Formats: sequence, C-alpha cells, structure tokens
Amino acid sequence: MNPTEDEIIRFFAGRAEPSSASVMIGIGDDMAQVRLGRGSSVLITTDMLLAGVHFDISRATLDQIGYKAVCVSLSDCAAMAVRPMAVVAAVAIPVSFGDVELKQLHGGLTRATAAFGCSLVGGDITRWKRSGSLVLCTTALGRPVVGKPVMRSGARPGDRICVTGALGGSRRSRHLEFTPRVAEAVNIACKVPVHAMIDISDGLSTDLTRLCRHSGVGAVVEAEAIPVSADASDTRDPISAALNDGEDFELLFTLSSRSCAKLLARWTEPTPITEIGRITDTGKIRLRRSGGVYDLPAGGYDHMSR
Amino acid sequence: MNPTEDEIIRFFAGRAEPSSASVMIGIGDDMAQVRLGRGSSVLITTDMLLAGVHFDISRATLDQIGYKAVCVSLSDCAAMAVRPMAVVAAVAIPVSFGDVELKQLHGGLTRATAAFGCSLVGGDITRWKRSGSLVLCTTALGRPVVGKPVMRSGARPGDRICVTGALGGSRRSRHLEFTPRVAEAVNIACKVPVHAMIDISDGLSTDLTRLCRHSGVGAVVEAEAIPVSADASDTRDPISAALNDGEDFELLFTLSSRSCAKLLARWTEPTPITEIGRITDTGKIRLRRSGGVYDLPAGGYDHMSR
Repeated sequence: MNPTEDEIIRFFAGRAEPSSASVMIGIGDDMAQVRLGRGSSVLITTDMLLAGVHFDISRATLDQIGYKAVCVSLSDCAAMAVRPMAVVAAVAIPVSFGDVELKQLHGGLTRATAAFGCSLVGGDITRWKRSGSLVLCTTALGRPVVGKPVMRSGARPGDRICVTGALGGSRRSRHLEFTPRVAEAVNIACKVPVHAMIDISDGLSTDLTRLCRHSGVGAVVEAEAIPVSADASDTRDPISAALNDGEDFELLFTLSSRSCAKLLARWTEPTPITEIGRITDTGKIRLRRSGGVYDLPAGGYDHMSR
Repeated sequence: MNPTEDEIIRFFAGRAEPSSASVMIGIGDDMAQVRLGRGSSVLITTDMLLAGVHFDISRATLDQIGYKAVCVSLSDCAAMAVRPMAVVAAVAIPVSFGDVELKQLHGGLTRATAAFGCSLVGGDITRWKRSGSLVLCTTALGRPVVGKPVMRSGARPGDRICVTGALGGSRRSRHLEFTPRVAEAVNIACKVPVHAMIDISDGLSTDLTRLCRHSGVGAVVEAEAIPVSADASDTRDPISAALNDGEDFELLFTLSSRSCAKLLARWTEPTPITEIGRITDTGKIRLRRSGGVYDLPAGGYDHMSR
C-alpha cells in the first residue's frame, strides 16, 4: 500500500541528521525553529501550491492564487502562535505567462503580506520550457509571540479541545480568500497557556489525529458541538463535511479546562471559539454522535493520495 | 518585447511595501536579510528547480536532483559570504512516484546539507493530480560570517574582479554535482574585505552585468585571463562558453587591488582564484580580446526566456 503523507514525514523525521544544536524544532510540526545564537531564534515554514491541486486556474484569479499561497504559510505561523515577519515566494510559470500575469500574482502575494503585517522580501521566478502548470512555493519566517512557539505535542488528558471559526465546505469559495488566524492565535496565546495547537489544513479529523499522535493522547469530539460552516450546512452530511473537508485554515487547540473557561469568558473578538471535545488518555480518536461513541478515522486530505 | 528576469525583479523590488524596519536587505540580492531584534538577523534565499529546465529526469538520478536543489540555495549563501544553517525543501512529485523515489530525493537533499554543515529542518510534499513534472523548491537560512553579508552593490572603480574555479560547459556534467563555494566564500571574506560578490549561476557575462548594475559601475574583463573549464575547452569557442554558459556556481567578486594581491599571495586552498579584470567608472561592461575592447552583452541564461 502506498504510504500516507504522515507516514512519509515520520520516516523523514526519523532519518534527520544527528540533531544539531541549532535545530530547536525539526521536521514534523507546522514550523521548524532554528537557533541563531545570543538567545535569538527564527521559525520557518514552506508550502508548495500546484495548479489543479490547490487551485483551479480557470476559476481563481492570479491575485487570489498569490494571496492564497502566502496565507497558507501564514496559517502555519498562526498554528504555532508565531508572528510572521517575512515571506519569500518562488514561482514556476507556464510558457504563456507574460509580465501582466506576473504582476497579478505579485499583487496577490503582497496583498496577503500587507494584510498580516509582514513583508515579501525575495523570491525566484522560472518559466517552464514546454508544458508545465503554475507552481508557487511560499516560505514564511516568524518569531514566537509568547516565549516558546505552541507545538502539536503538548496536549494532556483532560484538556479541552477548541476550534476557531466554522468548518467544512471551504472548497466552495472560502479556500481562496480565507483569513489565516494569525491575530487570533497571538491573542489566544497571550490570554491563556495553550498546550497544543495546529491549523486545520487537511480536515478536522486528520489534523486532530496529528495533534493527538504528536502528543501521545486520544480525544473525544462531540459531533453536536462542531461549528459547521454555512458552506457545508446544506450538504448531505454537514458534520462529515466539517470533520473531513480540507482547507478550513482554522485553529485547533487544547488547553486546561480552567484556561478554557477563562478564554471563553474573556473572548470578545468576532472570530468565534468553540469547545468541541476533550483530550483523553486512551490513544484513540472518538466521535460522540446521536448517543453513541464511534472511532473517528482521519478522513481528511492526504497529499500523497493519487 | 518580453521583459527579462532582471527587469521583472527590478519591477517587483520597486514595488516593495513601505520598507519595514525588519527588512535589512530586500528583493534583488542573492539573499534577503531580516532583523530579528536584539542585534540578531537571519538571511534567506529560495530557489525553484523544474524537471526539463534545471535537470533532465531521464539522465540525472533523484539523489543528484535533490543534491543539486540544496546546493543551488547554498551557492546563494556563498554569494554573500553567509554560513548556511538550515534548509527546508518543498517538492511536487509526479503521480508515478512512490516512497522509493521520495527516499532517493531525500537522500540527495540530506547528502548536500550534511556536506555543507547545515540541517534539513522541514518541508512539504504534494503529488500532482494527473500530469505534472517533478518540482523542488529549496529555501536556505544563514548567518553572515564577517559582520555584514557581502552584497552585489559594493563594487568600486579600480577594484579587481576575481572568480573562483573554472568556467563554462557545466551542463556537460558538473551542474549536477557541483560544490557550492561556501567554504571558499567564508575563507575569502575572513582574509580580506570583499566589496561585492555574486555566484555565477546564469553565466559570467550575465552575473557580472548584475553586479555592475547593482554597484553603478562598469567593468573590463580580460578574455585571456578567464579560467576556462575542461568541459568547455574543446568547444568551438571556449571563451564564449566560459562567459555565457549557466550553472558554474563559482564566485565572482571584487576587492581593492591591495586586497587582491594580499588574497592571491595567501591563498593556498585547492579551489583556484583568478583575477580576470577591473571595475571601471564607465557603466559599461567590456571585454578585451585579441587586442580589441568590445561591449560584453549579458549573454547568459534568462529564466524568463521562452
């Protein structure tokens, strides 16, 4: 059987070079953290977006594609409560592209960096020789807001599980113009200690499975509590859409029940925060729905699937 | 007429957002430099390599392709006398690739990071849906070795122009297994003040033109002095090959005549350093050959060409 994306990443993480003192967080989380000496460090994330996979070039404008590419990396910053500082973008363009198309793409890239308080500082442009579709690779640098970045691996049994926003049906429209939860992540991490966090890029069920596996814990999610997006509410099974659709780019995080109560009581921002379940010590990811409790498989998007 | 790569980059550099205090070096040099506070900064470069453009997947092994991808970014570090610290790599793989191919690619990436004293700290893997060729995007982080990174823009009239290694014919074999001049750059910058430096990625004539344009100077190159690679010496016009072939990945740098004499006298490393000409105040790039002096057009590789 073909390995999943997560299996491949685990394999590579396991083969990482003898850990250098400069690598504070290596392969496997939303960002890597590199020590620069004198108590300073930087975090980095890279994402590649492909025409026909992450965007449909016949439906999205080039401005939207550029905006999305940057925001995917900024969402990785949000996932660790890291403040983005700078972005570089590399693009491979089809033979047919001229400077008009490049300027549209560039407009989308800088629309995103400007909106989230960082700068486009460099990049690379290459043209395919014959056939070849648009490819963008964005890399973001950031700094942790509160001492340490929030990792995937800190969830503890008894923690409450929360999400920002509403989930499901992103592909209908939101996935091109979503708001990476950079401000929300910083705000949450400044208010209460967050034990573990991840952005929901490949579906709640898949990203919760990742968070739990990194933390060595299980979870029970309350189906009735999941905030379902308006884009998913009229589908055949809105809860399944909210659990398994990709590209929500909302935050999924865990914190003590006391912190959770404090956060919800003090949260006055427009982006909602919803408690959807609890971390357990069983190692299993479960869903309580219609009175029963069922295994919740990682049913989201796998970038290695054919 | 279609704009060249350099024209497009100048356009983007000119439209950079109101310069943030955190951007120390922005678009246009080999790396960007970002301030992190407390006297600390980091440099970053990103490069995208495409099947059919930067490598021939039927001739190169996946290990060689992974190695080359990292080394292209490490050569950008060398170009500014920056010590590479960490690399992230994003890849788009064809539908046909399985974990065997991914492990070969990964082997090449880590062969390069290990050889040059840095770590692969993260990445991204995505599969094309239907057709789509192998794409790699590598991003390197580094720190300056001697106070400030060496930029393209510091060349002064009267400076001597030097290159490392030998030039031309890289496509015959060297371009897959080249040695980014990281150690040489650090060594040179520790011995003498280097006024300007760039790596020769797109051909001596093109990269010298870039260095001179950034510095607001001209140059005269002595054709007889150019070190021609064995790969180019049996071609129809070895000097033209050395001037215009891409992917040498050698260093091109300028320094005072006094520093140049000192460097050449003290240089005992295996990689040769050759003085090939002088920086002038004319703004023109010229070539002295067979007794005459001629304009030297940027005849190297343009990534925007069709």
